[in-house]
Amino acid sequence: MNTITLLINCDDQKGIIAAVTNFIHHSRGNIVYIDQHVDREQNIFFMRLEGEFDDDDFRFEALAATFEKSIAKDFRMRWKMYPDDMTPKMALFVSKYDHCLYDILGRYNAGELKVDIPFIISNHNDLRSIAESFNIPYHYIPVTKENKAAAEEKQLKLLKEYKVDFVVLARYMQIVTERLIKEFPNSIINIHHSFLPAFPGARPYHSAFARGVKIIGTTSHYVTEELDAGPIIEQDVVRVSHSHSIKDLVAKGRDLEKIVLSRAIKLHIERKTMVYNNKTVIFS
Amino acid sequence: MNTITLLINCDDQKGIIAAVTNFIHHSRGNIVYIDQHVDREQNIFFMRLEGEFDDDDFRFEALAATFEKSIAKDFRMRWKMYPDDMTPKMALFVSKYDHCLYDILGRYNAGELKVDIPFIISNHNDLRSIAESFNIPYHYIPVTKENKAAAEEKQLKLLKEYKVDFVVLARYMQIVTERLIKEFPNSIINIHHSFLPAFPGARPYHSAFARGVKIIGTTSHYVTEELDAGPIIEQDVVRVSHSHSIKDLVAKGRDLEKIVLSRAIKLHIERKTMVYNNKTVIFS
Amino acid sequence: MNTITLLINCDDQKGIIAAVTNFIHHSRGNIVYIDQHVDREQNIFFMRLEGEFDDDDFRFEALAATFEKSIAKDFRMRWKMYPDDMTPKMALFVSKYDHCLYDILGRYNAGELKVDIPFIISNHNDLRSIAESFNIPYHYIPVTKENKAAAEEKQLKLLKEYKVDFVVLARYMQIVTERLIKEFPNSIINIHHSFLPAFPGARPYHSAFARGVKIIGTTSHYVTEELDAGPIIEQDVVRVSHSHSIKDLVAKGRDLEKIVLSRAIKLHIERKTMVYNNKTVIFS
Amino acid sequence: MNTITLLINCDDQKGIIAAVTNFIHHSRGNIVYIDQHVDREQNIFFMRLEGEFDDDDFRFEALAATFEKSIAKDFRMRWKMYPDDMTPKMALFVSKYDHCLYDILGRYNAGELKVDIPFIISNHNDLRSIAESFNIPYHYIPVTKENKAAAEEKQLKLLKEYKVDFVVLARYMQIVTERLIKEFPNSIINIHHSFLPAFPGARPYHSAFARGVKIIGTTSHYVTEELDAGPIIEQDVVRVSHSHSIKDLVAKGRDLEKIVLSRAIKLHIERKTMVYNNKTVIFS
Repeated sequence: MNTITLLINCDDQKGIIAAVTNFIHHSRGNIVYIDQHVDREQNIFFMRLEGEFDDDDFRFEALAATFEKSIAKDFRMRWKMYPDDMTPKMALFVSKYDHCLYDILGRYNAGELKVDIPFIISNHNDLRSIAESFNIPYHYIPVTKENKAAAEEKQLKLLKEYKVDFVVLARYMQIVTERLIKEFPNSIINIHHSFLPAFPGARPYHSAFARGVKIIGTTSHYVTEELDAGPIIEQDVVRVSHSHSIKDLVAKGRDLEKIVLSRAIKLHIERKTMVYNNKTVIFS
Repeated sequence: MNTITLLINCDDQKGIIAAVTNFIHHSRGNIVYIDQHVDREQNIFFMRLEGEFDDDDFRFEALAATFEKSIAKDFRMRWKMYPDDMTPKMALFVSKYDHCLYDILGRYNAGELKVDIPFIISNHNDLRSIAESFNIPYHYIPVTKENKAAAEEKQLKLLKEYKVDFVVLARYMQIVTERLIKEFPNSIINIHHSFLPAFPGARPYHSAFARGVKIIGTTSHYVTEELDAGPIIEQDVVRVSHSHSIKDLVAKGRDLEKIVLSRAIKLHIERKTMVYNNKTVIFS
Repeated sequence: MNTITLLINCDDQKGIIAAVTNFIHHSRGNIVYIDQHVDREQNIFFMRLEGEFDDDDFRFEALAATFEKSIAKDFRMRWKMYPDDMTPKMALFVSKYDHCLYDILGRYNAGELKVDIPFIISNHNDLRSIAESFNIPYHYIPVTKENKAAAEEKQLKLLKEYKVDFVVLARYMQIVTERLIKEFPNSIINIHHSFLPAFPGARPYHSAFARGVKIIGTTSHYVTEELDAGPIIEQDVVRVSHSHSIKDLVAKGRDLEKIVLSRAIKLHIERKTMVYNNKTVIFS
Repeated sequence: MNTITLLINCDDQKGIIAAVTNFIHHSRGNIVYIDQHVDREQNIFFMRLEGEFDDDDFRFEALAATFEKSIAKDFRMRWKMYPDDMTPKMALFVSKYDHCLYDILGRYNAGELKVDIPFIISNHNDLRSIAESFNIPYHYIPVTKENKAAAEEKQLKLLKEYKVDFVVLARYMQIVTERLIKEFPNSIINIHHSFLPAFPGARPYHSAFARGVKIIGTTSHYVTEELDAGPIIEQDVVRVSHSHSIKDLVAKGRDLEKIVLSRAIKLHIERKTMVYNNKTVIFS
């Protein structure tokens, strides 16, 4: 059985759904999932479809080529089709905090995340033993003001060498530069420890404490050039009170960070996210 | 512009989605919403679709008849098609509690619920003034052990006379009998003040207090002959602690009851619920 | 039985709790509730205590005077003592939205809020009939750029005449000026329809939609001169998705606004809030 | 600086708080935390207090003895006093699931749980490597129908040898018998993967799926002789829909189980739980 996932967006027009479902049907496929969304303000149509093909002579490339020619071109679609056997490659960037890393690798080990992790990059050596206990190569690339460009060069080289599809900043405490972002558009996932757009930047728990909020949050988003302002993938919150110190907020936040980042990674791996106008459509 | 909503379920088979979307397209309709679900254990396919037809000579009955003949029959579908201008008729049954009634009528007044409310039935006179302030007829039908059958007769007569589509038990403190349930299958919505299946039956807040739970809940479900065991439409919960008395649980529960019942009503009105095997599929 | 509620804050010092509890005991009172908090960064001590006195010759004023002399002075306390029979007087300011008003008056009617409501003030006549159905005087005081000062004069006159203790802005769409705020320090409760500090100012649902957040919120806070920046009393949130339009956010937000504002009012009435450094301590 | 935590419950009587706070004060201690609760139905008083003593000649045993003689006896208190330097000893029982174990050990490593873990017991060898990576002894004690009593004997011997204070069943898939429960009253913490009292017993996710609930939950409770019916320490829930398979429920449940069990452990370690009448008082 061959399975494909198809993501589409284009100007909203009549007959798109019929055209696409027909195409799958005539290609002797069976639609096992379909979801669509129309942004009525921007007049943009979004669609996610999963199809199964049990034909012996199914050829993914041929299907994709025919789709472009017979459907996508007419509707001027931006689209991507993924074969099910194409496991995405994810690189992890970490610094010193281990909670997100443990959570991601625990899920990876449990088979919850269908992904390959060719390596972990860190600007510190602290988490090497965790990487090793999960048998994942660990590259120590220190970053200083002076060597930042050179360090990024090394990172990029590794990313390309291993044909990495997307990058996860699992509490990587460095600001990623334009160069990397341009190479991985909407493919670098960050976890910011506040309920964005509240408290962007450094030390959000301190800011939340000072403001006396009654709920704190965490946000996972794609990295764009404007700091902490990229398209939001997932958010969650937890209730706090006057009785919680900054240290308590940090501890409560850790639990959120783990869960929210892992949810965002899962959505990305399962190709359930689409980005437009600095926002996301998240399919269920 | 004519809009239709189509709900389908049938055994899962190849080509259903393509057949249906094609049908809409060939009928010169545009699909503005499509969602589907497959229960892989039971092998049942579910679908909800909204289509727009801007043709001048659009005829709803003709569309429905053609759908039956050309699509539904082949796939052995159970299906319903609704024209957008068919506003459902909802009867409200209440006793003495006013919070759910206020909430429903407030939303009705604000245009949140696209529904007609031909009348309110109660076994008490307490809430008459609320009904009057919203200009809705109020029928006082007292219920005792002795007159139960006769009272239900009166209720049924009213329901039929006004061609009521569904009934909402807005904290109606009587058990509805088999007769009414059979006339309105999956069309009587109840709100039970516990997180079912925990604490069915009477006085659930007392039971929750006695058990010392840390979270209480509320459940809206379709009424079936087995008490508090019908298909669940919506649930929600709120955190409680040892410091809350039964009275506190009741007060916290009231807020939940209002919201959960109103959500369930809205889902039903918007034809987003499908029932099978004593469970629901709730479309988004 | 006489009951008092005592709120205290002062620099943290040794022996405060023992001194206060002793005082109550020696005054032949019984402590039925005690809670305290220490802000360790600012070194401030907070306390809330409820005591019962069943003595026939109990005199509230004498108790308060003795407390000042024998305890409060030594510890340099800021404190307030309330007799249980002193029902606070709450004025409601509204504009055109009715959902918060309905919710507050519904709870007031159900006995959930132990408060007197001498009147409702509005800059529009739209909600007069609601006020009348609950038998509460409704004062129509239109506000324009030109008459703002005079209108506020009228408001203040009413507030003083009826000895109002605190004001609730139940979606009152005007900015309250310095003059009123100074007369009612930490006694004007506002509901802001965003999860502050995100999206202050006008049209927060539009901003939330534009930013693509996955959760929206509501904040109830005391009004201070800086707009939407006063001490937060209560917040709550609800999950949203790309499929929700601005109109959907507004509707979901309404449900939050009602609940969050009513919770904040209840906390204030029950004297469970203390303000310091633009933050609140909220006792349970 | 010496710190003590004092937990009390007794029949509700006048003057308890004053007597206890006075005692601390006269013993030259400073109260840094006080919380109390009265169950008005049962007329039971509960209290938790933390005191600091900076006296050089502070003697914990002397303080406790004086408290018994001068206060506790008169009020017929059930009470416990803990010195801050008495780190509780926690034994972990596991089977094959690793998610709770990883979560607990991760927090332990991060310093979040102030506890000693002398050993892990398991009826399988699967999780040995995790125990080893955290340098905690792992005892493999297989359990069969035939050897159950002998296995429990071995467990008890270890628990006594290491003076274990409490036991955590971190998804230990065996039913603990009366003998162990009697040795550790209110000191065996279990995690049950449902929102009790809904779905007790085996395979709760299957039952939740069959019932079609819209929210699933997890419950951590003290183990008593009646299965899944002990005093509830903590619960939490997560929303699910018709689109989730049993496998999805299990995955979502895992996240809940980790968090809820770790919260319960933390509450127990910090001596914030009191049990009575098969319920808990949980101090904040």
